[in-house]
Amino acid sequence: MKVLVIGGDGYCGWATALYLSNRGYEVGILDSLVRRHWDNELGVETLTPIAPIHQRTQRWKDLTGKTIDLFVGDITNYEFLQKALHKFEPNAIVHFGEQRSAPFSMIDREHAVMTQVNNVVGTLNLLYAMKEDFPECHLVKLGTMGEYGTPNIDIEEGYITIEHNGRKDTLPYPKQPGSMYHLSKVHDSHNIHFACRIWGLRATDLNQGVVYGVLTEETGMDELLINRLDYDGVFGTALNRFCIQAAIGHPLTVYGKGGQTRGFLDIRDTVRCIELAIANPAESGEFRVFNQFTEQFSVGDLAMMVKKAGNAMGLNVEVNNLDNPRIEKEEHYFNAKNTKLLDLGLQPHYLSDSLLDSLLNFAVKYQNRVDKNQILPKVTWHRK
Amino acid sequence: MKVLVIGGDGYCGWATALYLSNRGYEVGILDSLVRRHWDNELGVETLTPIAPIHQRTQRWKDLTGKTIDLFVGDITNYEFLQKALHKFEPNAIVHFGEQRSAPFSMIDREHAVMTQVNNVVGTLNLLYAMKEDFPECHLVKLGTMGEYGTPNIDIEEGYITIEHNGRKDTLPYPKQPGSMYHLSKVHDSHNIHFACRIWGLRATDLNQGVVYGVLTEETGMDELLINRLDYDGVFGTALNRFCIQAAIGHPLTVYGKGGQTRGFLDIRDTVRCIELAIANPAESGEFRVFNQFTEQFSVGDLAMMVKKAGNAMGLNVEVNNLDNPRIEKEEHYFNAKNTKLLDLGLQPHYLSDSLLDSLLNFAVKYQNRVDKNQILPKVTWHRK
Repeated sequence: MKVLVIGGDGYCGWATALYLSNRGYEVGILDSLVRRHWDNELGVETLTPIAPIHQRTQRWKDLTGKTIDLFVGDITNYEFLQKALHKFEPNAIVHFGEQRSAPFSMIDREHAVMTQVNNVVGTLNLLYAMKEDFPECHLVKLGTMGEYGTPNIDIEEGYITIEHNGRKDTLPYPKQPGSMYHLSKVHDSHNIHFACRIWGLRATDLNQGVVYGVLTEETGMDELLINRLDYDGVFGTALNRFCIQAAIGHPLTVYGKGGQTRGFLDIRDTVRCIELAIANPAESGEFRVFNQFTEQFSVGDLAMMVKKAGNAMGLNVEVNNLDNPRIEKEEHYFNAKNTKLLDLGLQPHYLSDSLLDSLLNFAVKYQNRVDKNQILPKVTWHRK
Repeated sequence: MKVLVIGGDGYCGWATALYLSNRGYEVGILDSLVRRHWDNELGVETLTPIAPIHQRTQRWKDLTGKTIDLFVGDITNYEFLQKALHKFEPNAIVHFGEQRSAPFSMIDREHAVMTQVNNVVGTLNLLYAMKEDFPECHLVKLGTMGEYGTPNIDIEEGYITIEHNGRKDTLPYPKQPGSMYHLSKVHDSHNIHFACRIWGLRATDLNQGVVYGVLTEETGMDELLINRLDYDGVFGTALNRFCIQAAIGHPLTVYGKGGQTRGFLDIRDTVRCIELAIANPAESGEFRVFNQFTEQFSVGDLAMMVKKAGNAMGLNVEVNNLDNPRIEKEEHYFNAKNTKLLDLGLQPHYLSDSLLDSLLNFAVKYQNRVDKNQILPKVTWHRK
């Protein structure tokens, strides 16, 4: 089976491409490499030194004998997209190719507009390209748990059955996204749902939680295959950032009260979830939504877990509750369903002290690469 | 009170601008005039000969002594938008300035992408401009009843209280839009809701039904103030098109079975609804949704009403059920709430034989301007 991983040079995409390649899928990577450009713009570097994509794929071939086709270009360029699809002829498309940082999308109007236009147009182009020439191809699209916001009722997997005034229907789950980036994912979900309904395309929307960890079986095989790991205030995510902060003696940056509860998962589960989605495709005309996370934690709880694990390693870890740069509920109900991927066979890697040790050890190993000026949040959701 | 009408050269926008000006509001029109350009592109003309916008506003001033400021430009150009806002300093912004045709948005990928980018970026620009310098200004945004689709439960006004697994919350009403255009309005609604929540802006989303009619008290004052009336397969809407078809002896074009039920309203009610929204603004931080229609009809029922009224006028009216170019449910439950505008004082003009006579007479008057080649639908929702 041929799988095109769009955004295959990124944090989740690279690990996914190698995982699928290792399991016998014919893998292509399509990436504009703009993420590396944004690192340059922001003046940040991943904790880990990541090799150029051409070196990475070459190293993978040298090590395993497996080829990963490479298409460097932007899916907002429809001509390029069409050419790449016709050259590769995928059976499934895994779409990580979007601007994925909430703070980046909230920098200013330009970044908000860029995020929404880039993400929405890229996905629209994919839908049209599939409609025209690859209607049987299965689109596996990365959504986000952030599409749901924090409703006071249980979060279902994409749809909810509503009884109202004596009648009943199963409808798309109401969305309350929390940033211009999260909004772009909601727009995508609506567009993809429509394309499935009217053109009979097949798609799986993976509403993913916050991913942590860096090593998978494949990225750990060689230093040249190492995955990126972001810790900066714009692209860094909660648990990864906390571990790096602990490693370098920087207080853990908990935004506000830290009661914000979210779904989390190990990057080794991300790659497995993608495979499960591909191996069990959506039906023609079906827009399927999986909630892709394994455990729920509050941000404050995570910080305490990192502190405890860090202390056990001899690190002196402090927790710092910052003024929350975001506007979000800091204490709320949160109970999201995540049975669909488990039903397909997912066996989660649960967060544990040993895992924290591993991530912490990794962070300690590369601590000399950390630029402390990049850790604190610089982007605010507030009006002035 | 100063009201800026974006899209004030269009079908609803022009009638609204005159209505508000006539009632003592200080009115500005901002319009890119791109709709006139699209008419040229498609090779269609409105049934009614509409004068250039500069002539229209000049005639209004000559007749009434009232000035309407004019800003010709595109709100996707942020610099232009900011300058216009700072020059006019509106207390309320009525935003009709979007690509508003479902078939136009479904012509091909280019028109779909253009519609979503144009509509979403224009509204995002407005939100940022308001956030920066006009946070107290009230945004009155034209949404559409098409955002809801055709759920099997009653449609509430923007929000629904859901009980689920023993808990309760009031959440955004689930959306199931029916075209790339309708999707753009859903994206807008999410973006505006977010801006109200996080920046404390005030906005009213008017989910409007299908508007019919052409004359308001103001547009009927002088031939140079006449409103546009579209009958073509791309920009024409159901009842207006039926009346024009009846007038020229063309069979009424009912798509599919004609059981599609929608909300409708008279253009005289559109302009009054806008005034009611402006005169009773949303609170700071409030994202308010009104369903703006007065009656529900099935398309087939409308055709029969036009046939009956036409026959009474001596016209020979046939009804033709075409293959439906759209993909939509042709028989379905539809019951939408519309009490909020009534509570504010709306006194509807109900559809009646006399109204049909009036619209029919109007259509007969201008029948020599109809290009019959433009009546049938040329855009299809189907994959091939």
